[in-house]
Amino acid sequence: MSHATDSEIDTRIDELTRELSNWGRWGDEDELGTLNLITPEKRLQAAACVRSGTVLSLGLELRADLPQPPGSGRLNPMHVMTETGSDAAARDDVSGYSDDVLAMSVHAATHWDALSHVFHRGHMYNGRACTEVTSGGARVNSIVPVAERLVTRGVLVDIAGYHGVDALAPDHEVTVTDLESVLAAQQVGLLPGDALLVRTGQLGRIAASGDWKNFTEVEGRLPLEPGIGIDCLPWLQELGVSAIACDNWAVEHLHAGSSGRLPVHEVGIVHMGLVLGEIFQLDALAAACRADQRYDFLLAAAPLPVRGGVGGPVNPVAIR
Amino acid sequence: MSHATDSEIDTRIDELTRELSNWGRWGDEDELGTLNLITPEKRLQAAACVRSGTVLSLGLELRADLPQPPGSGRLNPMHVMTETGSDAAARDDVSGYSDDVLAMSVHAATHWDALSHVFHRGHMYNGRACTEVTSGGARVNSIVPVAERLVTRGVLVDIAGYHGVDALAPDHEVTVTDLESVLAAQQVGLLPGDALLVRTGQLGRIAASGDWKNFTEVEGRLPLEPGIGIDCLPWLQELGVSAIACDNWAVEHLHAGSSGRLPVHEVGIVHMGLVLGEIFQLDALAAACRADQRYDFLLAAAPLPVRGGVGGPVNPVAIR
Amino acid sequence: MSHATDSEIDTRIDELTRELSNWGRWGDEDELGTLNLITPEKRLQAAACVRSGTVLSLGLELRADLPQPPGSGRLNPMHVMTETGSDAAARDDVSGYSDDVLAMSVHAATHWDALSHVFHRGHMYNGRACTEVTSGGARVNSIVPVAERLVTRGVLVDIAGYHGVDALAPDHEVTVTDLESVLAAQQVGLLPGDALLVRTGQLGRIAASGDWKNFTEVEGRLPLEPGIGIDCLPWLQELGVSAIACDNWAVEHLHAGSSGRLPVHEVGIVHMGLVLGEIFQLDALAAACRADQRYDFLLAAAPLPVRGGVGGPVNPVAIR
Amino acid sequence: MSHATDSEIDTRIDELTRELSNWGRWGDEDELGTLNLITPEKRLQAAACVRSGTVLSLGLELRADLPQPPGSGRLNPMHVMTETGSDAAARDDVSGYSDDVLAMSVHAATHWDALSHVFHRGHMYNGRACTEVTSGGARVNSIVPVAERLVTRGVLVDIAGYHGVDALAPDHEVTVTDLESVLAAQQVGLLPGDALLVRTGQLGRIAASGDWKNFTEVEGRLPLEPGIGIDCLPWLQELGVSAIACDNWAVEHLHAGSSGRLPVHEVGIVHMGLVLGEIFQLDALAAACRADQRYDFLLAAAPLPVRGGVGGPVNPVAIR
Repeated sequence: MSHATDSEIDTRIDELTRELSNWGRWGDEDELGTLNLITPEKRLQAAACVRSGTVLSLGLELRADLPQPPGSGRLNPMHVMTETGSDAAARDDVSGYSDDVLAMSVHAATHWDALSHVFHRGHMYNGRACTEVTSGGARVNSIVPVAERLVTRGVLVDIAGYHGVDALAPDHEVTVTDLESVLAAQQVGLLPGDALLVRTGQLGRIAASGDWKNFTEVEGRLPLEPGIGIDCLPWLQELGVSAIACDNWAVEHLHAGSSGRLPVHEVGIVHMGLVLGEIFQLDALAAACRADQRYDFLLAAAPLPVRGGVGGPVNPVAIR
Repeated sequence: MSHATDSEIDTRIDELTRELSNWGRWGDEDELGTLNLITPEKRLQAAACVRSGTVLSLGLELRADLPQPPGSGRLNPMHVMTETGSDAAARDDVSGYSDDVLAMSVHAATHWDALSHVFHRGHMYNGRACTEVTSGGARVNSIVPVAERLVTRGVLVDIAGYHGVDALAPDHEVTVTDLESVLAAQQVGLLPGDALLVRTGQLGRIAASGDWKNFTEVEGRLPLEPGIGIDCLPWLQELGVSAIACDNWAVEHLHAGSSGRLPVHEVGIVHMGLVLGEIFQLDALAAACRADQRYDFLLAAAPLPVRGGVGGPVNPVAIR
Repeated sequence: MSHATDSEIDTRIDELTRELSNWGRWGDEDELGTLNLITPEKRLQAAACVRSGTVLSLGLELRADLPQPPGSGRLNPMHVMTETGSDAAARDDVSGYSDDVLAMSVHAATHWDALSHVFHRGHMYNGRACTEVTSGGARVNSIVPVAERLVTRGVLVDIAGYHGVDALAPDHEVTVTDLESVLAAQQVGLLPGDALLVRTGQLGRIAASGDWKNFTEVEGRLPLEPGIGIDCLPWLQELGVSAIACDNWAVEHLHAGSSGRLPVHEVGIVHMGLVLGEIFQLDALAAACRADQRYDFLLAAAPLPVRGGVGGPVNPVAIR
Repeated sequence: MSHATDSEIDTRIDELTRELSNWGRWGDEDELGTLNLITPEKRLQAAACVRSGTVLSLGLELRADLPQPPGSGRLNPMHVMTETGSDAAARDDVSGYSDDVLAMSVHAATHWDALSHVFHRGHMYNGRACTEVTSGGARVNSIVPVAERLVTRGVLVDIAGYHGVDALAPDHEVTVTDLESVLAAQQVGLLPGDALLVRTGQLGRIAASGDWKNFTEVEGRLPLEPGIGIDCLPWLQELGVSAIACDNWAVEHLHAGSSGRLPVHEVGIVHMGLVLGEIFQLDALAAACRADQRYDFLLAAAPLPVRGGVGGPVNPVAIR
C-alpha cells in the first residue's frame, strides 16, 4: 500500500479546509467550535440514556511510569507528598494530615485537546494567529470555555469488537464504511451533538505489551496507530458530531510512511473546531455495552479549567 | 460566645467516634466510605433530575495567583508551556502545535479529599495505620477508588441565599436547624446516597474582596470560616449523605478561638469515611436553582485518578 | 530630578551600542562575551589574592518564601521530599535514606544571566536572532559555556560602606565617579578580566524590612533600586571588566519614572556580551573586607550548567 | 569471589562504627562532619596549587535525558521556559527577555550528599533521630552548612588511568592498596583536609555506552559499580580526608550479590560525618593531570544552599 506524499497531503488538507471550515460559523468570538452543537435538548436526550445507573471511568490512572515513555517530550504525572502519615506518626500528635502535589503534561494521559493545540499555516481555529499562544499560555481558544460544555450523549463505536479482535492492526485506517457498518451492527444511531467514542483497542494492546514506546511519539518519530482517517471528517461534519475521542494517542490513523503531518488535527481542530479526546480507556466500556447491547450513554467529561491551557486533563465518565 | 477547649473538643470527638464509626461497616477492605451509599438506583434518580439540559461547572479556574496565598503551604496551579505558537511562527512551518505542563497542590483548588487525607490517633479510615501514607503516596484509601464513583444526585442547600445575604458571617456555624429550615424552604428532600452541597457564600466573598489570606490557612493560622458544625455529623449519617461539598476552604466551621483541630475532618473523614469536597463554586448554581426553584440535579464529579493521591482535583458539573 | 523619556533612552542605547558593541570581537562563534577577558594569568593573579584562607558564600539560601514575592512571575525555590526519615522510622529498617526535588526559576535567587536572557531589536549577543530562544531553551548563548569560566579575581566596591550607610537610597544611580572614588578609598585597583562586585546594600535593606515586593518586579511594575547607571558601561568596557554582580535585583539603577526599559541589560548583555550577576549577598563580604582592608579575592562562581538555560543558579564563593 | 552476607555486613558496619564514629568529636551541635578538617591554612595550601590558571568543570550538563533512567526514582533536570525569544519576536517590541524554570532531583546529577541523606539504626550524623527529616525537609544536617565550606585542596587519584584502562571493571572494589599505589605513582601526597577525587572511569563508560540503566539504581536493583570498598574508611579517617567524590553513582563499590546495603554510606555519612560527592566528571581532569603530572588543585565545590536539602547540586571546579 502506498501512502500519500507530503504534497498530496497538503492538497487534500487544502481541499477539506475549503469544504469543512467552520471559521465564523458560530460568530467571530466563538471559542467552542463543534461543542456549539451540544444543546440543552441534547443533554436531555443524553440523560435519557441512563438506564442502569452504572458508571464507568474512561480515565487512565495517573502514574509516574505511564503512558509517556522517555523521549516523548511529555512529563508523566509526577506525584509528590508534602505532608505524610509517617511524619504524623513520628510527631505522635492526636491528629494529623497528608498533602500532595501533582505535576504532569496536560496531554500526558486522558485529555481533551483545546482548539489552541494545533496550528495550520500560522492560524488556529476561527482565524486566530498562532502567536496568540505564547509562553504565557493561550490567550484565546484555551481549554477554559470547554470546561463547562462537555456533557452530552456519547456513542461508542467498537471497531475492534466488531472485527472480533482485541485491537485493530496498527496500519488500520478507520473509514466511513467502518463506522457505518459498526453503528448498523450495534443498532445505534449517531445524532447531532453526540460525542463519538471510537474503540481501536490500541491502548489496551500497548498496556498488555508494556512497551509504551510504540504508543506515542518518541524522539520525533510517530508511532504506527490505528485510528480515524482524514476522509471521515466530512462525515463527522455532516452528522454534527460535537467531539470525538479514541483509545489511542492521536485519534487519527498514523502509518509507516507518515510524514509527521497530522491531517485530522490540522483540518479537524484548526478548521472545523472539532474537539479531540485522546488516551481514553474504552475497553471496560466496550465490554459493558456488548453485555447489554446498549452503546449510548450520558458522557460527563468536563476537563480541568486550566487558564491558558492548550489541553485539559479529564476523568471522563460514561453514565449508563 | 465561648468556644470549646481542646479537651472538650477531644471529648466530643471521642463521643462522636463511638457513635458514628463506619469502620468495618462495608467490609475490612473497603476504601470508599460513604460513597458506598451511591447505588445504581440513586443514579437513575439523579438522571431524572435533568430537566432543562443545562450544565454548570463548580470548578474554580486553575490560575497561578489563586486561591492559595503565600504561606498557605500549598502550590497554586502553575501552568508552563513547552511548545508555543510563537515558536511555530518563528519556524514558519506549514503546521505546528503547542503543549503545556500543569503543576499544583492537589488540594489547592476545587477537589475532593481522599480518605487518606486526615489522621486521628494514628489511624485513618477503616482502622488503617497513618504510616500507610508515606513519601511514596497513600498505599490505601487513595483517591483512585473514588474516581469512578462520584456521580449521584446532588442537592444544594443555599444557606446564604435563605438568609438573604451574599455570604454568611465568618463566625456562622451551620447547624442541623439551618439545614432543615433551608431544605424545607427550598421544598427539596435529602435522600440516602445524595451529595449535599452547602452554600455559605464564603468563596464569593473572598473572591470579591481579593484578599485570599482570609480564605485558607496561612502560616499555621486557621481562617475564620462559616461552615458545617460538628453536630451536623450525626444528622448526615442518619440521612445517608454520600458526600458533602462547600464553597469554603474546609467544609467545616472555623472560629476565632480555633485550636487548630478540625473535628469534622477528624470524625467525618477518619471515622465515618465521609468524602468532603472543598472550594466548590456554588454561586452560579445557586442563582440557577433560585430562578426555577429546583435544587436537585445530577452531580458528575469524578476526580482525576491520581495514584497514591490523598485528594483529587476535579471539575464538578451540575447537570440540571 | 527628571528622567529620560523612552525616546531619549532609545537614542542613548543606540549611541552606546555603536560605541561598545563586541559582536564579532571574539569571533562569530563566540558565546562567552566578556568572559573572554579572563585569562589563565588572571586566575594566577586571583589565586594570589588568597591570603587568609577564609571563604564567604555570596549565595542566598534557597527558600520557598524568598526572595520573589507573588506577582513577580518567578517561582521561588520549592523543595519537596520524595523519601524521608519519618518513612524510614515507620518502616523500622536497619538503614534508610532521604531524597528530595528542587524546582525554581533560574533567576529567582543568586544567579548569572546568560547572554540569551535579553534581546534588543530582535537580536541577542553576537548578532543572533532572538528566535534562537524557543520553548526548548536557548540553542546558542546558553549558560553552559559560562559554567566553566567564572573563576577570576573579584573586586568588591562597597558603595554603601563608603557612604557610611546600610544601603544606598533607592534612587541612587551609581556613577563612574562613585566607582572611582570608592576604589581609591579602598586602595584597590581594577584590572582587565576582574569581576566587579558592587555593594548597594539593597538586598540587606529588603531582607531587614521583610517586604520583598519592593525588591523585584511585581505585576509588571519595576522596583526602585539603587544600581549601576548606563553611563558606567563605557568605563567597564575600557577597564576590561569580565563580569559585574550586585546585591540587588537587576544590577542596574531603576528609578521612579522607569519606562520598563533596562538599558544596562540591553547594551551590556546584548551588545557588549557583559555577564551580569544578580541577587548576590555582599554584606558579610563587605564586613570582612572592611576588617582587613583587602577588597580583592578569588571569586569562584561557576553556575549550574543548565542545557539551554538562559541563566544559571550559583553559590558564588569569595576565597580570601 | 564470594560476597558478604547481610549479617556479615552488619557485623562489619558495627565494628567500623565503634572504631570510626565522629559523633561528638566536633561538639554536639556540629553539622559539618569531616568538613571541619578544612582549615584556613588548608585553603592557602590549596591556592598554592594554582599554577597554570586553568579551570575544569566537574559538573555534568543538566539535561532532561540524563543521567537517571526511568525507574530510578529520581527526576532528571527538567528545564522549561516561561518567556522566550519567539514570543519577543512575535510581539516585535524593541526589547525583550527570556526566562526559565529548572526542576530536578537534588541527587540526579553532580551533587554532594548532605549528612541527612542516610540513616542507620534510626539515626543520622551526630546522633540525631532520622525523624528530624520530614516532608518539610531536614531540620538539621541539611546541605546549608556545607554550602560555605567546600573549598579545599583536591587530589585526584586516577585508578583507571593507573591501570591503563578507560574504566575499571564493574566488579572492581577500590582498596587501600590501590589508593596508595596510585598516589605513589602519581607522586602526590594526601594531607589532612584534602578532598579526595577518585576516578573509576564508570561515568565515562556509561556515557559512551548510552545505557544509563547500568549507572543507577533502577526499580530497586542496584547497579554493578567499581568504587571505594568499606575497608578504605579507616584509612580515610586516619589521613583526615574532608570529602570524597567519585565519577560513579554511589562512591562505593556495588557488587553482583549486593544486598541493597550501602556500607560506605552507612558508616561514612552517618557515623564519620564524611561528605560524599557523586556523579563527578573526572575524565577531562584526569587528562589534564596526566599531561603535566600535577594531581592536586584548588577545588571550589560549594553546593546550592537548599534550605532543608538532603543534598546539594553543584558545579565543582578544579582550578589548577
